[in-house]
Amino acid sequence: MLRQREDYVSGQELCDRLAVSRTAVWKAIGALRESGYVISSQPHKGYRLEETPDILSKSEIESRMQTRWLGRNVVYFDETDSTNTQAKRLAERGAAEGTLVVADMQTGGKGRRGRSWRQSPGEMIAMTFLLRPAFSPDKASMLTLLAAHSTADAIEKLTGLPAQIKWPNDIVINARKAVGILTEMSLSVEQGSIDYVVVGIGINVNTRDFPKKLADTATSLYLESGSRVGRSGLIAETMRRFEPAYARFLETEDLTGIQDDYNERLVSRDREVRVLDPKGAYTGISRGIDRLGELRVEREDGSIVNVYAGEVSVRGLYGYV
Amino acid sequence: MLRQREDYVSGQELCDRLAVSRTAVWKAIGALRESGYVISSQPHKGYRLEETPDILSKSEIESRMQTRWLGRNVVYFDETDSTNTQAKRLAERGAAEGTLVVADMQTGGKGRRGRSWRQSPGEMIAMTFLLRPAFSPDKASMLTLLAAHSTADAIEKLTGLPAQIKWPNDIVINARKAVGILTEMSLSVEQGSIDYVVVGIGINVNTRDFPKKLADTATSLYLESGSRVGRSGLIAETMRRFEPAYARFLETEDLTGIQDDYNERLVSRDREVRVLDPKGAYTGISRGIDRLGELRVEREDGSIVNVYAGEVSVRGLYGYV
Repeated sequence: MLRQREDYVSGQELCDRLAVSRTAVWKAIGALRESGYVISSQPHKGYRLEETPDILSKSEIESRMQTRWLGRNVVYFDETDSTNTQAKRLAERGAAEGTLVVADMQTGGKGRRGRSWRQSPGEMIAMTFLLRPAFSPDKASMLTLLAAHSTADAIEKLTGLPAQIKWPNDIVINARKAVGILTEMSLSVEQGSIDYVVVGIGINVNTRDFPKKLADTATSLYLESGSRVGRSGLIAETMRRFEPAYARFLETEDLTGIQDDYNERLVSRDREVRVLDPKGAYTGISRGIDRLGELRVEREDGSIVNVYAGEVSVRGLYGYV
Repeated sequence: MLRQREDYVSGQELCDRLAVSRTAVWKAIGALRESGYVISSQPHKGYRLEETPDILSKSEIESRMQTRWLGRNVVYFDETDSTNTQAKRLAERGAAEGTLVVADMQTGGKGRRGRSWRQSPGEMIAMTFLLRPAFSPDKASMLTLLAAHSTADAIEKLTGLPAQIKWPNDIVINARKAVGILTEMSLSVEQGSIDYVVVGIGINVNTRDFPKKLADTATSLYLESGSRVGRSGLIAETMRRFEPAYARFLETEDLTGIQDDYNERLVSRDREVRVLDPKGAYTGISRGIDRLGELRVEREDGSIVNVYAGEVSVRGLYGYV
């Protein structure tokens, strides 16, 4: 209520709306102040929220959510093994589409090659949302691109930083990785139908230090912008952008809705890339994604190869020269 | 111990081996008799297991298991929503490969088109085992065929019934369905790697009655053979056959190990089938599976079409004329 009003709310109104006693309101205000919220109070006017600390909690995140269905139900952990794993467990228990798992710390988070690290409280966002789409499993890889695009937009909106995308699933700021995305899916093999998809997004938000072996390739929004970023707001902004992009995706079942914007953000665009194809590595020039999310790579002879999976290194990025 | 010995085991030996008192042995024998086990006792000789009731329990199933790793750890439920769902929940919690979930009754079991029914205690087997293979997700559909084959073999061994396979995932006895198999998979979309696969097998064992709408198309081992079948033994026999077949599958990554036997059991073999292709239905003659598990259908013009998914009706089966 304090956040919605953005002005004084009288103690009596809080009592009436919440159907609790004056003492209960005092206690709740005290608890919020204890958590770091700055709340001023004036006789005859009531309480006003002056400042919000960067804490993550179910109510903090839900109170900022502006979506229709995505992220309206938040399951929050101070610490968990992996928000993807938690989301999959919830999915197996019948959790509703749109359920959002958020953790302040992740102890078993994994990057693409099983790289894992552990950040301190307040530094990162680990978030995973649950979808139950009716489209066929071969379309699921496009969700990663959709999520990367929404996250990059949200970061740029809230920080002004130039968020670029390293196809298919990383976000890079000034040539260092700030975001990783991991999409996992459960499907029925005979029916060829998706049971559920979880899309996990890990964002280095307020991280100040990285282990030495990551320092050249990893960064955080704080390190790039010089100021701390409110994590609940960033979560809500990402969800607010993903929801309509996903609605459009469900209509077209391809990426026409974001293709041009995605390619604008593509860090490899018109740059040399090295494709680690299992049948043999080759180099070429990245010409952007097509509407199915495959990366179009122009080879030396002018032919275009569509890359749909696997490792693609970008010359000049992450130490590849 | 009683089952392994198949003869009298002295009370003293039971005390010594289990490191318990004589009273504890009496109590345990009493509890087993209470559950329906027929155990004879003779002075100076001890106890002998004469007859085992068809009860399912963790220890009953595990005591019959002759495998190396598959089904050695049994998670048993008197009743559960679905053993596939339970197995997936366990998988998300890190359960070991080979874990076997068994239920006496399934309340949320689903067939291919969402058909569900509910049987009485003692009638069916619902079992699901967990695999964590390293092969690529496109190979997973072959596991269904592998499981169908092992189950058909086990049924024929224990009952003498002619167990035929309706490609890809049903077992048919005398033109009625007795077994359904449902394989589900969880995978990482970016990495294209399998997290885990669960293979669920539902067997109508001792069912005496089916709902009217199923009576023409469904049957049970009891109805076909006229005698009750011990369910723990059937579970163990199925696992005993699947384990080596799976080992061979891991080597070849195709079905060469079972292809000929599978085709021997194929109910549609050299019969007319109707393929409900999304692009248009057509009829042809089923010529058996290839080594990738696809059904080879000969069309009128003599050409062979490979069917890899979707509904295939067999003329003369389940009311298709």
